[in-house]
Amino acid sequence: MKKILVIHGPNLNFLGIREKGVYGEMSFNDLNEYLLKTGEEMGLSLEIFQSNSEGALIDRLQQAYFDGVDGIIINPGAYTHYSYALRDAISSTNIPTVEVHLSNIHKREEFRHSSVTAPVCIGQIAGFGAYSYILGMHALNMKLNEK
Amino acid sequence: MKKILVIHGPNLNFLGIREKGVYGEMSFNDLNEYLLKTGEEMGLSLEIFQSNSEGALIDRLQQAYFDGVDGIIINPGAYTHYSYALRDAISSTNIPTVEVHLSNIHKREEFRHSSVTAPVCIGQIAGFGAYSYILGMHALNMKLNEK
Amino acid sequence: MKKILVIHGPNLNFLGIREKGVYGEMSFNDLNEYLLKTGEEMGLSLEIFQSNSEGALIDRLQQAYFDGVDGIIINPGAYTHYSYALRDAISSTNIPTVEVHLSNIHKREEFRHSSVTAPVCIGQIAGFGAYSYILGMHALNMKLNEK
Amino acid sequence: MKKILVIHGPNLNFLGIREKGVYGEMSFNDLNEYLLKTGEEMGLSLEIFQSNSEGALIDRLQQAYFDGVDGIIINPGAYTHYSYALRDAISSTNIPTVEVHLSNIHKREEFRHSSVTAPVCIGQIAGFGAYSYILGMHALNMKLNEK
Amino acid sequence: MKKILVIHGPNLNFLGIREKGVYGEMSFNDLNEYLLKTGEEMGLSLEIFQSNSEGALIDRLQQAYFDGVDGIIINPGAYTHYSYALRDAISSTNIPTVEVHLSNIHKREEFRHSSVTAPVCIGQIAGFGAYSYILGMHALNMKLNEK
Amino acid sequence: MKKILVIHGPNLNFLGIREKGVYGEMSFNDLNEYLLKTGEEMGLSLEIFQSNSEGALIDRLQQAYFDGVDGIIINPGAYTHYSYALRDAISSTNIPTVEVHLSNIHKREEFRHSSVTAPVCIGQIAGFGAYSYILGMHALNMKLNEK
Amino acid sequence: MKKILVIHGPNLNFLGIREKGVYGEMSFNDLNEYLLKTGEEMGLSLEIFQSNSEGALIDRLQQAYFDGVDGIIINPGAYTHYSYALRDAISSTNIPTVEVHLSNIHKREEFRHSSVTAPVCIGQIAGFGAYSYILGMHALNMKLNEK
Amino acid sequence: MKKILVIHGPNLNFLGIREKGVYGEMSFNDLNEYLLKTGEEMGLSLEIFQSNSEGALIDRLQQAYFDGVDGIIINPGAYTHYSYALRDAISSTNIPTVEVHLSNIHKREEFRHSSVTAPVCIGQIAGFGAYSYILGMHALNMKLNEK
Amino acid sequence: MKKILVIHGPNLNFLGIREKGVYGEMSFNDLNEYLLKTGEEMGLSLEIFQSNSEGALIDRLQQAYFDGVDGIIINPGAYTHYSYALRDAISSTNIPTVEVHLSNIHKREEFRHSSVTAPVCIGQIAGFGAYSYILGMHALNMKLNEK
Amino acid sequence: MKKILVIHGPNLNFLGIREKGVYGEMSFNDLNEYLLKTGEEMGLSLEIFQSNSEGALIDRLQQAYFDGVDGIIINPGAYTHYSYALRDAISSTNIPTVEVHLSNIHKREEFRHSSVTAPVCIGQIAGFGAYSYILGMHALNMKLNEK
Amino acid sequence: MKKILVIHGPNLNFLGIREKGVYGEMSFNDLNEYLLKTGEEMGLSLEIFQSNSEGALIDRLQQAYFDGVDGIIINPGAYTHYSYALRDAISSTNIPTVEVHLSNIHKREEFRHSSVTAPVCIGQIAGFGAYSYILGMHALNMKLNEK
Amino acid sequence: MKKILVIHGPNLNFLGIREKGVYGEMSFNDLNEYLLKTGEEMGLSLEIFQSNSEGALIDRLQQAYFDGVDGIIINPGAYTHYSYALRDAISSTNIPTVEVHLSNIHKREEFRHSSVTAPVCIGQIAGFGAYSYILGMHALNMKLNEK
Repeated sequence: MKKILVIHGPNLNFLGIREKGVYGEMSFNDLNEYLLKTGEEMGLSLEIFQSNSEGALIDRLQQAYFDGVDGIIINPGAYTHYSYALRDAISSTNIPTVEVHLSNIHKREEFRHSSVTAPVCIGQIAGFGAYSYILGMHALNMKLNEK
Repeated sequence: MKKILVIHGPNLNFLGIREKGVYGEMSFNDLNEYLLKTGEEMGLSLEIFQSNSEGALIDRLQQAYFDGVDGIIINPGAYTHYSYALRDAISSTNIPTVEVHLSNIHKREEFRHSSVTAPVCIGQIAGFGAYSYILGMHALNMKLNEK
Repeated sequence: MKKILVIHGPNLNFLGIREKGVYGEMSFNDLNEYLLKTGEEMGLSLEIFQSNSEGALIDRLQQAYFDGVDGIIINPGAYTHYSYALRDAISSTNIPTVEVHLSNIHKREEFRHSSVTAPVCIGQIAGFGAYSYILGMHALNMKLNEK
Repeated sequence: MKKILVIHGPNLNFLGIREKGVYGEMSFNDLNEYLLKTGEEMGLSLEIFQSNSEGALIDRLQQAYFDGVDGIIINPGAYTHYSYALRDAISSTNIPTVEVHLSNIHKREEFRHSSVTAPVCIGQIAGFGAYSYILGMHALNMKLNEK
Repeated sequence: MKKILVIHGPNLNFLGIREKGVYGEMSFNDLNEYLLKTGEEMGLSLEIFQSNSEGALIDRLQQAYFDGVDGIIINPGAYTHYSYALRDAISSTNIPTVEVHLSNIHKREEFRHSSVTAPVCIGQIAGFGAYSYILGMHALNMKLNEK
Repeated sequence: MKKILVIHGPNLNFLGIREKGVYGEMSFNDLNEYLLKTGEEMGLSLEIFQSNSEGALIDRLQQAYFDGVDGIIINPGAYTHYSYALRDAISSTNIPTVEVHLSNIHKREEFRHSSVTAPVCIGQIAGFGAYSYILGMHALNMKLNEK
Repeated sequence: MKKILVIHGPNLNFLGIREKGVYGEMSFNDLNEYLLKTGEEMGLSLEIFQSNSEGALIDRLQQAYFDGVDGIIINPGAYTHYSYALRDAISSTNIPTVEVHLSNIHKREEFRHSSVTAPVCIGQIAGFGAYSYILGMHALNMKLNEK
Repeated sequence: MKKILVIHGPNLNFLGIREKGVYGEMSFNDLNEYLLKTGEEMGLSLEIFQSNSEGALIDRLQQAYFDGVDGIIINPGAYTHYSYALRDAISSTNIPTVEVHLSNIHKREEFRHSSVTAPVCIGQIAGFGAYSYILGMHALNMKLNEK
Repeated sequence: MKKILVIHGPNLNFLGIREKGVYGEMSFNDLNEYLLKTGEEMGLSLEIFQSNSEGALIDRLQQAYFDGVDGIIINPGAYTHYSYALRDAISSTNIPTVEVHLSNIHKREEFRHSSVTAPVCIGQIAGFGAYSYILGMHALNMKLNEK
Repeated sequence: MKKILVIHGPNLNFLGIREKGVYGEMSFNDLNEYLLKTGEEMGLSLEIFQSNSEGALIDRLQQAYFDGVDGIIINPGAYTHYSYALRDAISSTNIPTVEVHLSNIHKREEFRHSSVTAPVCIGQIAGFGAYSYILGMHALNMKLNEK
Repeated sequence: MKKILVIHGPNLNFLGIREKGVYGEMSFNDLNEYLLKTGEEMGLSLEIFQSNSEGALIDRLQQAYFDGVDGIIINPGAYTHYSYALRDAISSTNIPTVEVHLSNIHKREEFRHSSVTAPVCIGQIAGFGAYSYILGMHALNMKLNEK
Repeated sequence: MKKILVIHGPNLNFLGIREKGVYGEMSFNDLNEYLLKTGEEMGLSLEIFQSNSEGALIDRLQQAYFDGVDGIIINPGAYTHYSYALRDAISSTNIPTVEVHLSNIHKREEFRHSSVTAPVCIGQIAGFGAYSYILGMHALNMKLNEK
């Protein structure tokens, strides 16, 4: 059974509270239950982590290396746009990683159009709400089966 | 049964011939068969169109409006990065559209990092080879069922 | 009787269907009838052409040279902002040309503020809906009578 | 009878004296007579104002608000390219305004290609010499009749 | 009694130690006592928090939401200029927030001239030393009484 | 009794008329009465000046030098963003000056995010409506008492 | 006998008609005869294609792959400066290609100084009129003999 | 006897008061007396004008045209860096004009390094204090004798 | 005996694991032992700290101030390129600091070419692997003996 | 017999030694012999000059003017990208000059994509190794026979 | 008697030969004789140096330091726009230096608008042909007498 | 015994004369003696070269190749920031090279922050005065022993 780590970046724990116009009504707990349930259905062992701290996110990525995690789904939140430290962490773990976003970052403010983390991921999925994570899980699953 | 239009932009018909290092071994026919077969399994009625011509791609998008197409998967190829005309066409049809890319455009040449078409799509999926299209079909399916 | 060619660029055939908030309710057919009727009143022989294809627009501009067209009204749509090929075509026909736009491109997205075709036209008229074309016809008429 | 205010910005009073290669032979007085005569023919009550001073132009725009002016034709001259104060004044009067230019600003020096005032006008007309103003009057007339 | 949270960003705890030429002689403790005393005089219940960690600052902003804080004074220190994560946190709490700075950031290094957090605050006050916070408390007080 | 000069830049005399969505309902006269009354309460002798003219604003700043004004509150309106002449005038009078703005300029159009005058002022206060001026008066008062 | 494809981009069919100051007196037919005659002398089998359409140019490049063309001379006209789709097409055929220009693009308008197609060609030759093509044929001949 | 107009732009009337570190101790009156005296010695009829208003400076330049002024010395102060209206005025009078600056603008703030008025003058002299004007008078004298 | 603090920024604890092509085979423990051993030989008392968290790095820098540390060697990792907060921390401690990098950052990705922390350090040493730290220790030693 | 000067810029004397991956195996002597032999065959009198010094290259270009040289082939090496002095020298000699490059500069580092010397040459040839020079000789020969 | 060194940069020895449209008919010898004669009249001991080599110009500037030269007139030619080495040399000699240009560099190509050497000179004089040098001599004379 | 070449770029021979505030009191001779003495102690055979000429520096680098030099220490002075020719020379010799700077170039003028030569060196050391060279010698020594 493949081990998948889901990493939520800053402010994602405010889902359902925060800017519903942009992110929808689903709460953070609902999101995580949805992911766990879908993971179970897909035969994936999911672990979920959230932090507002850049350093804690990097720490968790590094721990994944030692835990033998098979794949990572990461929504780096606003860190997407400037955290070169997170980029280096993703790159250094050498674990297949998919970047996901709830909203279509390409249609929001100019600064959200570019990602400094995407170049070290397998790919990027943005704009499908909670379903972006599910698509990321499918993508990861496909990738892991390829090997 | 939902009608889905798959649009391949310029040079995608050269898949399997063209730069295998970037795009892999799968031929254009193989790709389309894979899409049709998966569409069938998902209960979607797929139509596929490819053209190297910006005008022809716009014409086809407009026709989709009259055909009552329910959703569109588009890989605009290199037009992604400068065709404001294609952008206007997607926007004017008002049909839910998902932008997909075989390669992770965010890790390639600088000019491939930004998309002028993504802001008028639901979202963008890039980096998973042929499977990017499959993810796009799932995303569209989810979106159409939401309504 | 002066021969005037009216050229509509990409997506203008979707007028009345497409983004009514920006372009208004008038359909493409209504627009053309309005132009033909006004042309007749002004004593101008109007021919109207629309294409979504950059190449077809250039072909038509070149044909105008051989047809002895006296003046051109062009709304290059989104090609306004990047088609240097269209610019060269306008410049090479050496026929007095007026660039028109339905919307006030100067108050829309940043990329619509500049025109690569306007520098090779007599002038530019933007923001008056269908009436932009009528103003263009008056401008052309004045110019042609000047000679 | 509709009240129209025509505002000429800096250096336009030097017409016929100044750079004839760019602006033609017509003098400033000739231009104004031409506008008044055409206004009369169109059934418009025209008032004309010129100033080289940014502040005086703003004062005059504000006075128009109290005078119940129906529409404004403005050629902001070089202020077009940097006077955000003029822009705010146009915007604050809330009177339909058309920006006009004698020359085709899009084919002159780089700094003349962009307008900071056009985004708060109905539209912009450039390149037809004195006739740009006439076109602006027609555009305004059409707009005022629309209401 | 209104609950106000004062948040000091990175390095502000070094006040009085750090670059006195720029920030003056007052120590961090002096500053906080001054704020508490003034808050008391103004009838505001003040809580003060400082951290050098971006994540801890975001955590504290989120906690403010659950604590029912009425208003926030934030001096994001150097995070002002690049922390989009902090920006999202301020935006998501939906609590009236005033950004303050000890020094006049507009006359210092180029990179300090722009703020990524100010656009999601009510306003910004910069350049008045410790008194910037007091002004922020007055501004917040006025705003909260408005409601 | 300290002499304070309040300078309102272009279009501020249109307050209450102009763009109420941005600037609120308060009229220019109301604003001035509010300032005078508050000044009286604070024991400050206030003089108020408004002009749409860059030159007149500079003249008035220079006169302040000869009048022995103790402090200046300036809202340079749109001149904030390009009037280096105003900047030089503020700098040359050598009178403590506070820049204020009704709206939060940092959340409006890009061109309003930077100030060419703020670097020669003590500080900048933006976003609190008429209360920005009151905060400016407090800031100035504090500064003048410091000496 | 080596098969060489000569591709002329948009507006080149207007040679001798179009801007003679820039491109000289030679007509498009004269050019092609000159190329065919020289090709014959050099023992090369030449095929010539012109289109104003980006899509048609890409189609023709792809066909060259199936026709077993040995080398390509391309003058992409204005597409040189923005057609990433053409660039991808050249790159995907994997046929040795030489980019040629009649005029010295490096001394014309700024936008003509850079080429998005040259990086995927063997080299670029610009500025020698019709003779640029002849030089391109020599370059290609040399390259093909090298193998 | 040649008629020379000396135009001082904004804030120059504050010479000797304003920033002595940059501009020196000489007062505005001293400067003008020095210029008049030197003009007399050189056989030039000098007229001197100062204004803080962009519009008044343009008015004065235009009047010079009607007065038959032979040459102009202008120190546009801060308007040097953005007043395209002043530029147009200088250009339209068609009177030989020399731009002068007291300080070496090339070693001051970045925004003072470029001049929008210098391109329409004969030349520019900067950095020699009051003597810059004297050099300008010599330059003008030489130029006028050349004719 | 001089007290030296060595600070390793984010991801440096993954040395020997992470991208060996760029950073070599030496593990993080090996590095630290090498530094401690060399420090001992040089008569320096070394303390070593690593964190992935920007805030923790700032905290540690501030503690160094209270601990009376004589000099600091810092490798800020990816924070080098954007952490203005770290920059302020280095600047506020006022302890001689040397910035070191394992790799030659000047030959890697564009974003790694500039350092926001180097301007507040004594100097920067980059490109010599673990030996960059040793050179930094020598540099610091020399500097401390200078006093 | 036409006199042709071949100028090799900096580092070209290291051909065959230097970066063979980029420039190939041919030595500098081999290159020159190849050029002389081909020149002889073409009936051209060739003189060859190499220097690493910008000044010496300019001196040699100026001497060519006095020697009555008919045409120049220049490979300015890295000076291509910044030597405005070399540009002025080429321009001042007024001798037909062709710029050549061994490698395709358009596919190398960004800074090699633009040429400051090409705008004052007849044209530019890049990417064909030593054969670029031969093509340059043919181009020059054609040009000289044209006259 | 004051010792003045006149330094002519690259290509100035081609005066009268080179681009007469820009630089006029006067030869380099004529220029130098004119300078020597005027220097004599002004009681200055002039030495003149020209080189096309950046290094030789720096050498000569350094020698001036040892020769006890009182002032320098330099026309750095094209080096004006990029030679930071020349800038450092001027700065290091610490001799009062005036930068002069024959043409008005501010109205020529964009790259000639900025000077990297002017910031380390007393001032810059441009646009008056040979007379720019004479003005420079007067400026230097005035400066030297000031001391 | 390893042969090391030390190359000093432009103006370094003015050390001790030139800008002591930036570069300190040590003369150029003192520096060289210090380097020779330290080299001797380290068992390195040092040769020292200085030139103000870009060409001479390239010549010397090339000669080093033929002399079998083992390593190079280069301080390219101001050429660091624009001499692509020097960069190519360093790259072509293929000798391990260390770039050193007396001052911390990262805290000086903007143009000194980037180096065009560092990307082809092993690494860069800046900010430690004469000791930067000593560190460079240690770095080179370590590198050469590695092989």
